[in-house]
Amino acid sequence: MPEPIVFYDIPRKATVPSENAWSPNTWKTRYSLNIKGLAYKTVWIEYPDIEALYKKLGVEPVDIGPTGAPYCGLPLIYDPNTGAKVNDSASIARYLDKTYPDTPTLIPKETDALHAAFQRAFAAVLISGNGDFPSLMMPETQARLNPASQGYFRRTREEWFGTALEELAPHGSEKRRKHWEGVKNAFHEVAGWLQAGGQDNLVFLGNQRICYADVTVAAFLVWLRITFGEASEEWKDVLTWDGGRWAKFAEAFREYEHVDEGSSLVL
Amino acid sequence: MPEPIVFYDIPRKATVPSENAWSPNTWKTRYSLNIKGLAYKTVWIEYPDIEALYKKLGVEPVDIGPTGAPYCGLPLIYDPNTGAKVNDSASIARYLDKTYPDTPTLIPKETDALHAAFQRAFAAVLISGNGDFPSLMMPETQARLNPASQGYFRRTREEWFGTALEELAPHGSEKRRKHWEGVKNAFHEVAGWLQAGGQDNLVFLGNQRICYADVTVAAFLVWLRITFGEASEEWKDVLTWDGGRWAKFAEAFREYEHVDEGSSLVL
Repeated sequence: MPEPIVFYDIPRKATVPSENAWSPNTWKTRYSLNIKGLAYKTVWIEYPDIEALYKKLGVEPVDIGPTGAPYCGLPLIYDPNTGAKVNDSASIARYLDKTYPDTPTLIPKETDALHAAFQRAFAAVLISGNGDFPSLMMPETQARLNPASQGYFRRTREEWFGTALEELAPHGSEKRRKHWEGVKNAFHEVAGWLQAGGQDNLVFLGNQRICYADVTVAAFLVWLRITFGEASEEWKDVLTWDGGRWAKFAEAFREYEHVDEGSSLVL
Repeated sequence: MPEPIVFYDIPRKATVPSENAWSPNTWKTRYSLNIKGLAYKTVWIEYPDIEALYKKLGVEPVDIGPTGAPYCGLPLIYDPNTGAKVNDSASIARYLDKTYPDTPTLIPKETDALHAAFQRAFAAVLISGNGDFPSLMMPETQARLNPASQGYFRRTREEWFGTALEELAPHGSEKRRKHWEGVKNAFHEVAGWLQAGGQDNLVFLGNQRICYADVTVAAFLVWLRITFGEASEEWKDVLTWDGGRWAKFAEAFREYEHVDEGSSLVL
């Protein structure tokens, strides 16, 4: 029986621990761990403490932030069974595939390069482009973080965007409407990829089964659902997009959304 | 024995018929046909005649040009064995996979959606972005077309770019140097996808064998090689990129570069 993997995640304000998890990047890893059925325990860590965690573990940041500086981001895992410390959600998926080959494969070897290209394509559609998705999500996310993270989050994101979070997509504004339309179009483009081969009923990018590309898409959908809430107009709208395709897709991920109570980091 | 597929391609000035083919989009189909070993015959058609060909065959354009108008592009195939007329190189690859299942598969079913995403990723890296590759290739291509196509090509491309072709990347200019650097960086990013899974010696995006994503990349490389020439400084530089990765990659495609003499279209 392997020791539980330590999984560092960022909490938000929540009345129950199971609603703590919100970050799309860490959700990619949580889905990965849950799909593989690997034992893990969450350690919750607030934004301002992430850099200290990297130092404590002796891990080098792999990401470069929008300002060009190295960026200490989560997810990060520590696997006591091998001593490995891995950051970046795609690298973690590859690590888990390699280290635990008897669990469901997230990135089949023959799709290794195509998976890497997928990350670029999905970012081009959902994240870069007109910045519709980040513009909508950043202010909503900031409002729901714990006070310990709110200042850090605001400062860094306002530096990245070059504007106050409140200016990105004010409620009721035409700007907000256009950003929402942009997000809908982005998912419509991904729906096009799913239909490219003429398989009209194809649910997953991995074809018959979930692959890491699906996990990536699901992580952004769950961010949206958890942030706005199940009962929100926004989520209800998502459920109608592309003939209900994303409702079905999101539903298939429900069984992989376990969030353990976890513990807080003591640095 | 099936009848040869009719493959419509755009010629350029060349002293031997085998050096007629240059267009990256039609090269995707030529590679597809050659890899599959299917019998085909080329029909050469100049740019101003493509629209008339679409009308004659009763085919609707699937592409939208940069100006937003429908665009009658090549490749286009007519398969006398099934009566099918297919345009768009990816659709042709999918059609050939489906219709001739005993030939090498270009888009394995389980990578259908990932392949569609790949096209987006590759375009984001090589074509959109700073427009480095088109800026370098358009003027060089125009200079090598037959007079029958030169006027049309110049007019449409200058409309797309909003500038004279000669202004895009003048020889010896800093602009040209930067565009070339951009192209090198684009291929370096694709090299990163090939290495993402930690398989250092991976040559093809399709892993152990060529897939349609590789065909896409090869088609842009062959455009570059045929346009500048084997002996050019440009091609010699490409051969050094990413530790010789692209030299090896391009070499592997040599056996699929057969160009038949073909015939000219009589409308």
